[in-house]
Amino acid sequence: MPTDFNPSCPLPLADHATVQLAHGGGGRLMQELIEGLFLPAFRADDGSALEEAPPHDSAVVEIGGSRVAFTTDSFTVSPLFFPGGDIGHLAVCGTVNDLAMAGAKPVGLSAAFILEEGLPMETLRRVVASMRRTAAEVGVPIVTGDTKVVDRGKGDGMFINTAGIGVVPDGVDISPARVTPGDAILLSGDLGRHGIAVMSVREGLSFEGVPKSDCASLAGLVGSLVDADPDIHCLRDLTRGGLAAALCEIAGHARVGIELREASIPVTEPVAGACELLGLDPLYVANEGRLVAFVPAEAAERILDVMRGHPAAPEPVIVGTATEDHPGTVELCSPLGGRRIVDLLSGEQMPRIC
Amino acid sequence: MPTDFNPSCPLPLADHATVQLAHGGGGRLMQELIEGLFLPAFRADDGSALEEAPPHDSAVVEIGGSRVAFTTDSFTVSPLFFPGGDIGHLAVCGTVNDLAMAGAKPVGLSAAFILEEGLPMETLRRVVASMRRTAAEVGVPIVTGDTKVVDRGKGDGMFINTAGIGVVPDGVDISPARVTPGDAILLSGDLGRHGIAVMSVREGLSFEGVPKSDCASLAGLVGSLVDADPDIHCLRDLTRGGLAAALCEIAGHARVGIELREASIPVTEPVAGACELLGLDPLYVANEGRLVAFVPAEAAERILDVMRGHPAAPEPVIVGTATEDHPGTVELCSPLGGRRIVDLLSGEQMPRIC
Repeated sequence: MPTDFNPSCPLPLADHATVQLAHGGGGRLMQELIEGLFLPAFRADDGSALEEAPPHDSAVVEIGGSRVAFTTDSFTVSPLFFPGGDIGHLAVCGTVNDLAMAGAKPVGLSAAFILEEGLPMETLRRVVASMRRTAAEVGVPIVTGDTKVVDRGKGDGMFINTAGIGVVPDGVDISPARVTPGDAILLSGDLGRHGIAVMSVREGLSFEGVPKSDCASLAGLVGSLVDADPDIHCLRDLTRGGLAAALCEIAGHARVGIELREASIPVTEPVAGACELLGLDPLYVANEGRLVAFVPAEAAERILDVMRGHPAAPEPVIVGTATEDHPGTVELCSPLGGRRIVDLLSGEQMPRIC
Repeated sequence: MPTDFNPSCPLPLADHATVQLAHGGGGRLMQELIEGLFLPAFRADDGSALEEAPPHDSAVVEIGGSRVAFTTDSFTVSPLFFPGGDIGHLAVCGTVNDLAMAGAKPVGLSAAFILEEGLPMETLRRVVASMRRTAAEVGVPIVTGDTKVVDRGKGDGMFINTAGIGVVPDGVDISPARVTPGDAILLSGDLGRHGIAVMSVREGLSFEGVPKSDCASLAGLVGSLVDADPDIHCLRDLTRGGLAAALCEIAGHARVGIELREASIPVTEPVAGACELLGLDPLYVANEGRLVAFVPAEAAERILDVMRGHPAAPEPVIVGTATEDHPGTVELCSPLGGRRIVDLLSGEQMPRIC
């Protein structure tokens, strides 16, 4: 790793002299920040890189013959409490899910708090109790932590970082690099609930049946999938940027095309209604308890059956296929035969939903 | 882990209805927050706990026969750049040092950024370049990361969380629980530079020879110490709360007394002068590149010799002894034979120095 690294020249980031909200939004600007600044800076001389190439929700490092998955996530969601969850619940599930997306069995989490002076102690207690409850439900201990306090006006109540470590079982190799033309794409349930739940509080919306966040651990579901078929090619949870961002990234890294069947994508009535009201596209809205699985076509029905038995996969469906055609591009096929390209948004639809 | 945990009753935290700056200051209030709220919440039914009992800078978990150390630290230092370092340098060294304090050889770090909208991109570039440089010098790759952006006025430029994993070599068992009456206490160098360096910028002080932060990786030093004598009992870096807080914590957890010889504690002239000016006690000022080692008395001189050869231990000295007398209490012995008790401060001398 040369130490004379100077990233100030060849980056497209030059377009923005300052950090924009969209740099954290899961869209093209965030991708540019990661690929233009972070990856080149943290890539080692041997070509191994931050988040390995192709990027992944967890890094996997070899320790004494075991493959240890390692991941980190900061949570800045606003407000701290929302229908169906809170920042603590989210912080535990989010990091557990990042481990699960590498096929890893979670072993332990860290919890680091950045508190703003003046935060009600009762708020902290409620969030900590929620983290405890969620960690107990998932069966993953919180083993280490840190606390910082910043002056009033220099934070926003509470930010939480959780990092996690897990073990990838022998025989499991889950990565965008393994996606192959012909793979079936399975989706575990309906889209858009988390983002809409958070936005509904923030915008003070009250409409019939405000959806609850789908925020949930996917570790149990992934454990069942891997037990049933260790040959799953790729898993991805559908957080910032939603299903669209997840598929665009995978298509780009795996150099496959993706065809998505619009009619098969489940979106509930309240989410569809709220999206219309707010001018959002449910394909891009964040979820915190949904995943896509890329699996060999011949295994698709069997794996769908395993999903069907699992509470974390309320409405599993096959939503598309990886193709040799149009590598790097995701196409949405409408019921009437129309096609449109699904691209990364440059900015984001909704800031601070995680 | 029962899920009906309700931490709102038996805590001394009731004294404070809101979070105070001092809850992050490394003193008694932070200890109360950790022991009153976080530890009970995250302790498992089998008695195993967050940061193990007694607390430690890293948790150690068993993975496939290896002992994996795991730690996390958020950095909120203000200002982002200070004499001798910056938040990026600090974020890499701080977490590497937490791993080293468990005797672990660092394997990989994560880097999670919480950026404030409007942060100059050039500031981010400089910090990232500093992290890259430091990680390369230490020889620890940054393997995974995360980026969040919060709205203007809801952050303070940049916060960074680094988590780290490492491997504890066979035969090494470093923990406060191993401290024994009779142990010699070795200090690796002069005190107070980091805190004073940060404060000098913040307070706009300009005096002769403003000290540079001592911020540095201790991983190489610890590697040499452990190679020379795997039987080192306890290591602790002297961050928030300084030497005083580190020794008070160890005395409390190991149930030993500690006698500290005032005359042997190295403090440079500029640090002593700045402390007088600012009304600070160098015993409590934060360091980011200093450690104490508790070692069997008969090994003390040999280990001191190893320290002497190492650039990360500029002025190693024996500063005291663990005793059977006054367990849990640290006493400072003056050159004239006076004694005073060194206690945790309830608050903190200096907010946001790390």
